[in-house]
Amino acid sequence: MKLRDIANRLQCRLEGDGDVDIVRVAAIHAAQPGDLTFVANARYLPQLATTRASAVILGRTKGEAPHPPCAVLHTDDPYTVFARAVAMFARTTPPAKGVDAHSAVAADAVLGPDVSIGPFVTVGAGATIGARTIIHPNVVIGPGAVIGDDCVIHSQVSIREHVVLGDRVTLHNGVVAGSDGYGFARQKDGTHLKIPQHGDVVIEDDVEIGANSTIDRPAIGETRISAGTKIDNLVHIAHGVAVGRRVLLAAQVGIAGSTTIGDDVMMAGQSGVTGHITVGDRAIVGAKSAVLQSVAAGTFVTGHPAFPHADWRKAALAFRQLPQMKKRLEALAQRIVELEEKLAECQTPQKDR
Amino acid sequence: MKLRDIANRLQCRLEGDGDVDIVRVAAIHAAQPGDLTFVANARYLPQLATTRASAVILGRTKGEAPHPPCAVLHTDDPYTVFARAVAMFARTTPPAKGVDAHSAVAADAVLGPDVSIGPFVTVGAGATIGARTIIHPNVVIGPGAVIGDDCVIHSQVSIREHVVLGDRVTLHNGVVAGSDGYGFARQKDGTHLKIPQHGDVVIEDDVEIGANSTIDRPAIGETRISAGTKIDNLVHIAHGVAVGRRVLLAAQVGIAGSTTIGDDVMMAGQSGVTGHITVGDRAIVGAKSAVLQSVAAGTFVTGHPAFPHADWRKAALAFRQLPQMKKRLEALAQRIVELEEKLAECQTPQKDR
Amino acid sequence: MKLRDIANRLQCRLEGDGDVDIVRVAAIHAAQPGDLTFVANARYLPQLATTRASAVILGRTKGEAPHPPCAVLHTDDPYTVFARAVAMFARTTPPAKGVDAHSAVAADAVLGPDVSIGPFVTVGAGATIGARTIIHPNVVIGPGAVIGDDCVIHSQVSIREHVVLGDRVTLHNGVVAGSDGYGFARQKDGTHLKIPQHGDVVIEDDVEIGANSTIDRPAIGETRISAGTKIDNLVHIAHGVAVGRRVLLAAQVGIAGSTTIGDDVMMAGQSGVTGHITVGDRAIVGAKSAVLQSVAAGTFVTGHPAFPHADWRKAALAFRQLPQMKKRLEALAQRIVELEEKLAECQTPQKDR
Repeated sequence: MKLRDIANRLQCRLEGDGDVDIVRVAAIHAAQPGDLTFVANARYLPQLATTRASAVILGRTKGEAPHPPCAVLHTDDPYTVFARAVAMFARTTPPAKGVDAHSAVAADAVLGPDVSIGPFVTVGAGATIGARTIIHPNVVIGPGAVIGDDCVIHSQVSIREHVVLGDRVTLHNGVVAGSDGYGFARQKDGTHLKIPQHGDVVIEDDVEIGANSTIDRPAIGETRISAGTKIDNLVHIAHGVAVGRRVLLAAQVGIAGSTTIGDDVMMAGQSGVTGHITVGDRAIVGAKSAVLQSVAAGTFVTGHPAFPHADWRKAALAFRQLPQMKKRLEALAQRIVELEEKLAECQTPQKDR
Repeated sequence: MKLRDIANRLQCRLEGDGDVDIVRVAAIHAAQPGDLTFVANARYLPQLATTRASAVILGRTKGEAPHPPCAVLHTDDPYTVFARAVAMFARTTPPAKGVDAHSAVAADAVLGPDVSIGPFVTVGAGATIGARTIIHPNVVIGPGAVIGDDCVIHSQVSIREHVVLGDRVTLHNGVVAGSDGYGFARQKDGTHLKIPQHGDVVIEDDVEIGANSTIDRPAIGETRISAGTKIDNLVHIAHGVAVGRRVLLAAQVGIAGSTTIGDDVMMAGQSGVTGHITVGDRAIVGAKSAVLQSVAAGTFVTGHPAFPHADWRKAALAFRQLPQMKKRLEALAQRIVELEEKLAECQTPQKDR
Repeated sequence: MKLRDIANRLQCRLEGDGDVDIVRVAAIHAAQPGDLTFVANARYLPQLATTRASAVILGRTKGEAPHPPCAVLHTDDPYTVFARAVAMFARTTPPAKGVDAHSAVAADAVLGPDVSIGPFVTVGAGATIGARTIIHPNVVIGPGAVIGDDCVIHSQVSIREHVVLGDRVTLHNGVVAGSDGYGFARQKDGTHLKIPQHGDVVIEDDVEIGANSTIDRPAIGETRISAGTKIDNLVHIAHGVAVGRRVLLAAQVGIAGSTTIGDDVMMAGQSGVTGHITVGDRAIVGAKSAVLQSVAAGTFVTGHPAFPHADWRKAALAFRQLPQMKKRLEALAQRIVELEEKLAECQTPQKDR
């Protein structure tokens, strides 16, 4: 594709030779002639001087950036333009429309126009699948489940009975939506009576959930993942959790039962939140943190238990110096003993006088 | 259903109008007329005054609880009664009995009466499935596996060869039972020789395992999950682990190889235990903790590494104050320097006199 | 099998009765007559005196080990010999060669000689499967994927489009290779634009990946797991990560995007590494650690954030004593106040004089 045409489609100002042929989008260190690359992070600006790419997507820089030895696509938002460029060069292999002969679709399931259902897919009684939705091979959709339009459900996903998905939802491979919440009532003999989990699971529009993540169903009420939220791999959302809109949950995050996560919250990898609390809108949870109390809106917390991030950084730094602090404390204690002894000597003669 | 009939079935003392029709069980904040709700946790007692529910399941309260504006089902164990009430109102869609035509069941597999085997299920040679057990779609059961009576195996589960399940076992979607343990012998050239993992995996009666959890098989001996244990989602049980009876393992817990977990142990979310140690009966492991040494029976430990919880709480509180402690330490050091100087001054004149 | 024949096959020096029949390999505490056991860890040496095994695989011991009451197979590398012995006694049930009639293999897929493809397996258009590779039931292989020779792909695995596997790769049940990386560009309205993930995933020769682990695909460039690396269960490898050769990643490890893990690195359970950094060759990461900065080759780090392990051990020990340190600090402060007062008294009279 000619660079000039790419610039037009991406609405970027072109500087340099628009006739060059672009065949791929590549990272700046790996780019070769024929590649389009990008810099969205200032740390990679020095690599501009030596890139072998034929063109680079570039935001506004503060003068000190080297001028690349290639054409430039100027934009205010290089990361978004990069995303669009990648989409232009994608190898796409959309599966065939229609219902594969090797599937088991209940007679009363309702399928929208242009759905694609792959081999070895099970669709339960009364389930609904919206227009243009793609169900990859070996997915299991339970009775009464409702899936919206333009969803992509990757292979090996389980969507349990009565789970509801909005439009443009993407579930990656192995996701489980609607498994039983972990709810038991301890009996007097020490055994645990299962509390049947028959509540609702609602996954709203434009949600994406990463591979092998699990979303549990509550006994009563609902578990809800609100519109525009993006969840990474191996994340656990317990029963009765409410996750807000446009939330980002990185890999291996866990949210315990009945907790509320506000809108625009970000949780870094391997962090967790205990049950029955609230993480306010726009809060940020640092990597590997354990949130044990509710967090106010807009707060950035880290640690175990989590507390304000700036304080945690200082405490974590001091933690590293703890052995020295301990030694220093003992050394000071010794000097105090010496001071006390000397002062006693010093005072004793005075009394004697 | 009439509230009077519900009270009878749940063996609760009814206070109020037994003729009201109940259609649903709901949480106290979400309950509407026609709903039955419950309070099992004292923190929700204040909401009793304003609930819109038609009836509430209530334990003995200490007088200060408001009287709800609705009928009451009195009980000594409101959480258990709630569990039974939820079961009464469950939407149940038990799959059809029999073997789906789209399954692949080995000719010599032994199926008990009234089993249900869904589409795209594979049952290996010589496997046994007990009476009334439900195998949901797309489950794979390996050769020689033994599954007891009244089990529920949800979709996408893998039960590997020769794994043994007791009666009334529930495996949620995506569970893997019997995958190879992570065992390698380092060779002189730095490569890792695989130690074949051909030991046993036994999952006893009344065990429930959450979505996408994994139970590994050892090289020799067995991995055992004992009766009545309940495991949440995304939990890892390594090869040769022995988990006791009535154990509760919350989401994303990990147990390393050859470790023994006693009876009635509780491990909170994202905690882990190292290999070759013992966690004693009734021990509790706090959230996100790393247990690196054996834990005595009945002990509650938290932290990384884990130590007694009460001590950890104090240490965690002090951790937050570490930067101030460090400043205070330096300030005291300065005052000691000043004291030393003054004392030197104070002593010097004495000598001079 | 006669012990003499076993000794010959394992190239061990036999001490004792070579005519004894061995039927099983067992752990030293569980061994019975007819069993072959082993000691590769000095802590188990005392059990030698009382083992009921018929024979034991034994390395060189330092004299103080009790002589076992049974035959001995002498070797320099008891763990490796144990691995080979286990393989000799393995219950093996290799699936039948050929393509199961219940599979859906694309017409243009290329299958090597002696492949085994189980029921309900989907093989996409243009995919390639090498010689003698075993595809267990209910696996989904995407269009254009390439799988080498002698691989074992266990049930419920998803190998996404264009993923490349070398020879002798083992993927355990539920592994996902090639799911979309977690990459989004934040828009001015707060929503997140998906960056299409169309890069490569390469899993080299002799890699083994544990149950339900996930390997993501990047937008551009590649995610690579290099030869001989062994990954445990529920591990997350993000988009664009490069994992070196012979790396060991224990269960529930997470590696964030674009990070490089050197050769021969070992990461213990539940540890994590942030994005865009490098963990040098032969580095070791302790259990549950959070690596937030690049780690030099050969370094052993632990903690959150991770720092040199020996320092972390001391700091962790001091952490436990923090409450006492705090009390001691306050007690010293009080003694300083007293010293200051006494010194003031001591000095005041001097002035008066």
